[in-house]
Amino acid sequence: MLDYFFKPSSVAVIGASRDPQKIGNVVLRRLIEIGYPGRVYPVNPKAEEVMGLKSYPSIEDIPDQVDMAVIVLRADLAPRALENAAKKGVKAAIVVSGGFSEIGNVEPELEIKRISKEYGIRVIGPNCLGVYDPKNRVDTLFLPEEMIPRPHPGKVSIITQSGSLGSFLLTWIYQQGRGISKFISYGNKADVNESDLISYLAEDEDTSVIAAYIEGVDDGRRFLETLKEATRRKPVVVLKGGRTQSGDRVVRSHTGSIAGSSRVFEAAARQGGAVVVETLEEFVDVPIALASQPLPKGDRVGVITNGGGFGIIAVDSLEAKGLRVPKPSRELEEKLRAMLPPYYPVGNPTDLTGDSTPEQFLETGLAFAESGEFDVLYLIPLFGVPGMRPGEVEKALFELKSRIDIPVVAVAVPTNEVVKESLLRLEKGGIPVYSTPERASSVVKRMVELGTRLR
Amino acid sequence: MLDYFFKPSSVAVIGASRDPQKIGNVVLRRLIEIGYPGRVYPVNPKAEEVMGLKSYPSIEDIPDQVDMAVIVLRADLAPRALENAAKKGVKAAIVVSGGFSEIGNVEPELEIKRISKEYGIRVIGPNCLGVYDPKNRVDTLFLPEEMIPRPHPGKVSIITQSGSLGSFLLTWIYQQGRGISKFISYGNKADVNESDLISYLAEDEDTSVIAAYIEGVDDGRRFLETLKEATRRKPVVVLKGGRTQSGDRVVRSHTGSIAGSSRVFEAAARQGGAVVVETLEEFVDVPIALASQPLPKGDRVGVITNGGGFGIIAVDSLEAKGLRVPKPSRELEEKLRAMLPPYYPVGNPTDLTGDSTPEQFLETGLAFAESGEFDVLYLIPLFGVPGMRPGEVEKALFELKSRIDIPVVAVAVPTNEVVKESLLRLEKGGIPVYSTPERASSVVKRMVELGTRLR
Repeated sequence: MLDYFFKPSSVAVIGASRDPQKIGNVVLRRLIEIGYPGRVYPVNPKAEEVMGLKSYPSIEDIPDQVDMAVIVLRADLAPRALENAAKKGVKAAIVVSGGFSEIGNVEPELEIKRISKEYGIRVIGPNCLGVYDPKNRVDTLFLPEEMIPRPHPGKVSIITQSGSLGSFLLTWIYQQGRGISKFISYGNKADVNESDLISYLAEDEDTSVIAAYIEGVDDGRRFLETLKEATRRKPVVVLKGGRTQSGDRVVRSHTGSIAGSSRVFEAAARQGGAVVVETLEEFVDVPIALASQPLPKGDRVGVITNGGGFGIIAVDSLEAKGLRVPKPSRELEEKLRAMLPPYYPVGNPTDLTGDSTPEQFLETGLAFAESGEFDVLYLIPLFGVPGMRPGEVEKALFELKSRIDIPVVAVAVPTNEVVKESLLRLEKGGIPVYSTPERASSVVKRMVELGTRLR
Repeated sequence: MLDYFFKPSSVAVIGASRDPQKIGNVVLRRLIEIGYPGRVYPVNPKAEEVMGLKSYPSIEDIPDQVDMAVIVLRADLAPRALENAAKKGVKAAIVVSGGFSEIGNVEPELEIKRISKEYGIRVIGPNCLGVYDPKNRVDTLFLPEEMIPRPHPGKVSIITQSGSLGSFLLTWIYQQGRGISKFISYGNKADVNESDLISYLAEDEDTSVIAAYIEGVDDGRRFLETLKEATRRKPVVVLKGGRTQSGDRVVRSHTGSIAGSSRVFEAAARQGGAVVVETLEEFVDVPIALASQPLPKGDRVGVITNGGGFGIIAVDSLEAKGLRVPKPSRELEEKLRAMLPPYYPVGNPTDLTGDSTPEQFLETGLAFAESGEFDVLYLIPLFGVPGMRPGEVEKALFELKSRIDIPVVAVAVPTNEVVKESLLRLEKGGIPVYSTPERASSVVKRMVELGTRLR
């Protein structure tokens, strides 16, 4: 049934406005701009047409089946509009308006709950951004694209209880050139909650990994059962807002959620099979790796770089996170020495120096992987030296990836536009790229944790 | 005496090359491109001129006093070139060439040491990038600007034992729109070492904060004394490469440095008054704040945001780092309530919601600071809502900063080019801006640590 939020044949925007400053304008505009393939009906009693589309005084007047309604009205007007939509047979509604329980205005929210139950209409919100689905071309976010850029289609779906955090995540994901499958800001969850969404996304073929930012859940038991079910199918990454005592205090005042002890929550989420992360960086970094890499079979990390100091920082950050960076066996060391110029420091890390070539990354990577001495390959290609042409590095790393079966992560920073484009292609092609060793090492740690748990 | 590295009246590039692929070409080119104001002399016995400059067969042939020589020759040729330079009266030499002790080729490095001692010529390197000083327009880095972009002039000076890490730092600092006073990659330190550089920078008027990446020191006692002296004048931030057991193992094989226990090193550095950081992010983030903010007088952080979920994540990250996020007093709370619309959640954080205006950030910030209840002001302005025009936010935050005397940090992400430019101006104008709460909270933690230590 939640399908109607992502693949509606027709959408009504209730409160569609001709004033570009109003969010009722932005929502309609975004549906047009993104190329939503269904039929769109503005509802506005004061206009004949909005953005060239015939406008209807009320939803009942639309001479068509309407699958989804986006309600952009004041809190006191929203419940009635929802009831009209339900009566008309609308299957899914997103109430983006705020001013409900989050500011203590409980009545209209209870009214929305009642209507949803009574008519069986599914409701996302109120006090939310709603849905962004670049593949199905649905976008109900009331944030103009000039202000909040939209990521391209990808494999990770994100659900977030906080809209402001959601808008930040979109911007950040966009800036890192990453994609998104479905983005859902679900706000006060008068009806649809995190468990509904995780269940749905677990079955969604376009979603490989689910990332959930959650401030509090109402039905802990159902959430746990949902997680158990979902994580049998695909990884679920959870970030709990209000992890600390002060944070928890804010959650309770902010959302009215029953937050409870976040330690209990996090323990339960882990028990349900989720990967519990602690920072925003992990929240966007870990899913990308889980969506593209096999899980490591152990905690031994092999590091290959062409920058000595970088290798040291990487090893420090890996060991600080409890991962192992073992020395290679004598056998492997001899193999590397035979393969590389005599002045290259071989070991773990192996330092390919400023004279490095893409072929050396490939050959050394193969030797590391084939030795069976490492569970994760950790590459730090520095550009800015003559032998490391981005296109050739890209080719070598793709070949490496295709010939080995352990997970690979890379640390690299785009030194110019050519390198930047190349790194984006690398990540799209299945090698996650992080801007610092610390970020990559956090990701490896979470992958190892999950791998250990699933073995 | 180290002044000659940054303000030489004349520079000879020994090994200047006409071949754009050679580093002897890049070094000369960079001096010209950056607009080095002194006289430049290429030395190359096989060319009449290089890049339009008359070339000399050997340094003795230059009919002028030469202050600094950059030596770009093979390891076996470098010592003799250095000796010739010393005989000519050159005061400072940078030996960028590698292939010395870092690959076990100890002899020529000992030779460099000897020459430096015997003639009193100061030597940076070998196996280093040398110096980048955008204010004095000296750039000996053999990395083309297309490959490694150069930051604009700023107040933080960086010294790094690792050249590869240095090139990453430059790129990253550039991308974050931050500036740099002096950058020195000092490599194998045959002569000039971290203590010399820290001493020098401590007296340098263009440097407000010193950041040092160090893998190992040879004379621990002198280093400690130097730190004590330097930190009386300005903050020194230290990142130790090889902090962990495996990292230490790599340091020893990589640089031949006597690394010793990094715990001992870090304890000594702290005793010397340094701010010891643990990650690359801290290494670039902390100095910016120390260069622009007064030190906090305690650990109470006041958070103001216009995004509820963001406030929660910020509070979590602050408390996870051991900082306090106390509730405001009843007095302050009443003041805020009287000032802000009734539906704004006031407290710590105070959430100015999607209806926020720049004036509300200013007024709330003033109320927080004037209450005396907080030692640090932590602002999270989210753009992408109608009331938050970047130029006006900028103006309001500058006014706020000018009217309070506690440190301020901001968390913000550039949602578009206009916001990006505005955030860069904010930081240049004295309000450090970080892309995630975690990064800002780490910075606050280090500021509080240093403030506590100095009280």
